[in-house]
Amino acid sequence: MKNVKEYIEANKDRFLEELYGLIRIPSISSQSEHKDDMLKAAEYWKKIILEAGADKAEIMPTDGNPVVYGEKIIDPNAPTVLVYGHYDVMPVDPIDLWDSPPFEPEIRDGKIFARGADDDKGQAFMHAKAFEFMVKTDQLPCNVKFMVEGEEEIGSVNLGKWCEQNKELVKADIILVSDTGMIAEDIPSITTGLRGLAYWQVEVTGPNRDLHSGLFGGGVANPINVLSQMISKMIDEKGMVTMPGFYDDVIEVSETERSMLAKAPFDVEEYKKAIDVEELAGEEGFSTMERTGIRPSFDICGIWGGYTGEGAKTVLPSKAFAKISTRLVPNQDHEKIADMFKKHFESIAPKSVKVEVTSLHGGQGYVCPIDLPAYKAAEKAYDDIYGIKPVPVRSGGSIPIISTFEKVLETKSVLMGFGLESDAIHSPNENFPLIQFFNGINTIPYFYKYFAEMMK
Amino acid sequence: MKNVKEYIEANKDRFLEELYGLIRIPSISSQSEHKDDMLKAAEYWKKIILEAGADKAEIMPTDGNPVVYGEKIIDPNAPTVLVYGHYDVMPVDPIDLWDSPPFEPEIRDGKIFARGADDDKGQAFMHAKAFEFMVKTDQLPCNVKFMVEGEEEIGSVNLGKWCEQNKELVKADIILVSDTGMIAEDIPSITTGLRGLAYWQVEVTGPNRDLHSGLFGGGVANPINVLSQMISKMIDEKGMVTMPGFYDDVIEVSETERSMLAKAPFDVEEYKKAIDVEELAGEEGFSTMERTGIRPSFDICGIWGGYTGEGAKTVLPSKAFAKISTRLVPNQDHEKIADMFKKHFESIAPKSVKVEVTSLHGGQGYVCPIDLPAYKAAEKAYDDIYGIKPVPVRSGGSIPIISTFEKVLETKSVLMGFGLESDAIHSPNENFPLIQFFNGINTIPYFYKYFAEMMK
Repeated sequence: MKNVKEYIEANKDRFLEELYGLIRIPSISSQSEHKDDMLKAAEYWKKIILEAGADKAEIMPTDGNPVVYGEKIIDPNAPTVLVYGHYDVMPVDPIDLWDSPPFEPEIRDGKIFARGADDDKGQAFMHAKAFEFMVKTDQLPCNVKFMVEGEEEIGSVNLGKWCEQNKELVKADIILVSDTGMIAEDIPSITTGLRGLAYWQVEVTGPNRDLHSGLFGGGVANPINVLSQMISKMIDEKGMVTMPGFYDDVIEVSETERSMLAKAPFDVEEYKKAIDVEELAGEEGFSTMERTGIRPSFDICGIWGGYTGEGAKTVLPSKAFAKISTRLVPNQDHEKIADMFKKHFESIAPKSVKVEVTSLHGGQGYVCPIDLPAYKAAEKAYDDIYGIKPVPVRSGGSIPIISTFEKVLETKSVLMGFGLESDAIHSPNENFPLIQFFNGINTIPYFYKYFAEMMK
Repeated sequence: MKNVKEYIEANKDRFLEELYGLIRIPSISSQSEHKDDMLKAAEYWKKIILEAGADKAEIMPTDGNPVVYGEKIIDPNAPTVLVYGHYDVMPVDPIDLWDSPPFEPEIRDGKIFARGADDDKGQAFMHAKAFEFMVKTDQLPCNVKFMVEGEEEIGSVNLGKWCEQNKELVKADIILVSDTGMIAEDIPSITTGLRGLAYWQVEVTGPNRDLHSGLFGGGVANPINVLSQMISKMIDEKGMVTMPGFYDDVIEVSETERSMLAKAPFDVEEYKKAIDVEELAGEEGFSTMERTGIRPSFDICGIWGGYTGEGAKTVLPSKAFAKISTRLVPNQDHEKIADMFKKHFESIAPKSVKVEVTSLHGGQGYVCPIDLPAYKAAEKAYDDIYGIKPVPVRSGGSIPIISTFEKVLETKSVLMGFGLESDAIHSPNENFPLIQFFNGINTIPYFYKYFAEMMK
């Protein structure tokens, strides 16, 4: 690959302007009032892909938000790379914690601050620009296909079906994704494992209406007290999930792999300082990296019920609600766990309340073998740019669609992430360092180069 | 007492018209747009008291809404009865559930429908008319003082101070209050106990910002999980509060009194059906009436944290909050309990979170001994009118001002309530049966008669 750096240098302002145009569209997939913005973002992506040099690009409908598909076929016999990304973003609440408006990108301290700056507008956009570079400088060594969806943040609800219907269209030798992170600005890493996910809403109903807590308190089960008790019963004193059968399909990671994982640089004190907690917590007998990487977790993502306004209102409420999720390790089946939890949680409810569990969302975990040619190609590409071999890491996050790709398209994915932990994805003040953005555009063409060589 | 019934019969239409005039003033103390209505209601009460035959009546300012004070002193050596009531009412929301406008009293099925018809315009007004009867028929056996406040529904915030400043003025042998209920139209009861109250807000802080539940989940304490655990630890499997020292000042009620309480009619099946629960819950070894009457309770009045919107958002939140209250039995000191909880709750917090407890509100419980002369007088008065001795009951609710009277004025109160549970106080379609209204006016003069006899 010749003159990558020069090309980036010559076009960097334009790249940023184009990215800003995408970021300014508030494409929040979970909020129905942004329905029009989803279409605008899809249109914008179509334009990006075409202008970068694709033969064609189109907006393809699904039952939800459309998929943007584009391709450039240089040779039917050349290897094919399918680039996956998403144009939807997370909600911005709590809005008052943002230092600048979430959909007006602003550069401070060398970072782009905006919702989607990293996840995944910024990261997916790097692929468009790396592709543009290879096309414009006549160095593209593979066929390229783009598949950019608008429902990743709500569980890619329609993409699995779309893939089934378009298997031939998106056929590829590897799927290339930048929707993860690396350890630090100077320590590249490749995510080789992702956790799966199951997510429920629970509703606990006590009396049929809010009651006077004086006249009834002590004599009638309070659904918030009960919900708290039920939640607390889900985790034992060793930090393990108590649901029977929950760990049945968890593959214990070998001591060898655990000691490899332990070599990834990790400073407990810095980690605690960054999130300002005095002590970490989690499953007994595992390190923090293991707790978030190779072990399942159980988190209450939201809870509400009763009086939540200013001051004191005495009430024994009728209902309490929680949003509950577990992160699953690769061999755990999210549908099996979803049913398991529903049955279990309903079974531990006392008769003094009614409990309803609704499964909202789920996805399988994923493992990428480190001897895969595409993994090796990514490894060499990072090494070229960063001067250091990337560390294989297991991420605690979930990208459910990655395991769907494996199932439906029978194609592995390589997760070349350029995000940093400080990017605050899903949080106020999400940001993406310019150095990561440009290094990403710089690294990706080398992946194509090595991947093409290895596939010969 | 001669000719009470005749006097009521001859004046009933005028009584109702006068009460309606009071009810038509929308004196909602919690809503500042009704500030003028508070003054109008106070003026109206001054007029009622004067016209009923008081020597004097005046509107006395406080830092909030004024207190209406009036008196008739027949003899410095005669016993003095201080009548307490309030002219303020609760808000009317949800307004669309009312079958007639809340401030336009309407009689349907023998009941006056209006906000304040029972609580406490209707009930307090009975005392004015009973007083009028005794004055006009020359049968008043006691000195009478009226103290009608305008802030009961917002916690009587200024009345304690007003009492301290006017101790001599309101000096009395007993305080007489009709602001409670009786068991049924044909089963009179006198409330002999009120529970106290302590109320806190707790804030549990985990990480300094919302985290990605995939990347951090399992490795960092989730404040909602922790708050649920802490709440669940507050109650043991026997339904008892686990805070050390919590029961130290609880006076165990004797078996004799418990068996008296058990005689009050109570149908568990009807109670469950009314609130639509399959099973009741509470402290082991106590009946529902005891759990809500003579035992303290521990209720979460509100809880919130994390994502509470539509659909699934995966987040490991930074904070979780709860509004927590206990109802206390008479000998428990709410300030002692407030401190005790703060220390205890903070002490059971794991080091992985920070916990802050703020005390929001509190009040002492109250007990009226059933051998008090005033209690005996009330008992005989009900017996005369209803033909049955009233049942002493302990209410689970709190009227904090009653214990303030005891502390500041060193005077006991007798709670002669004529409300029924079906009166829907604080709710849409509040009402007060005419039979209760007129029976109340009929009963009260007998209280004065017997009280004067006993105090001789």
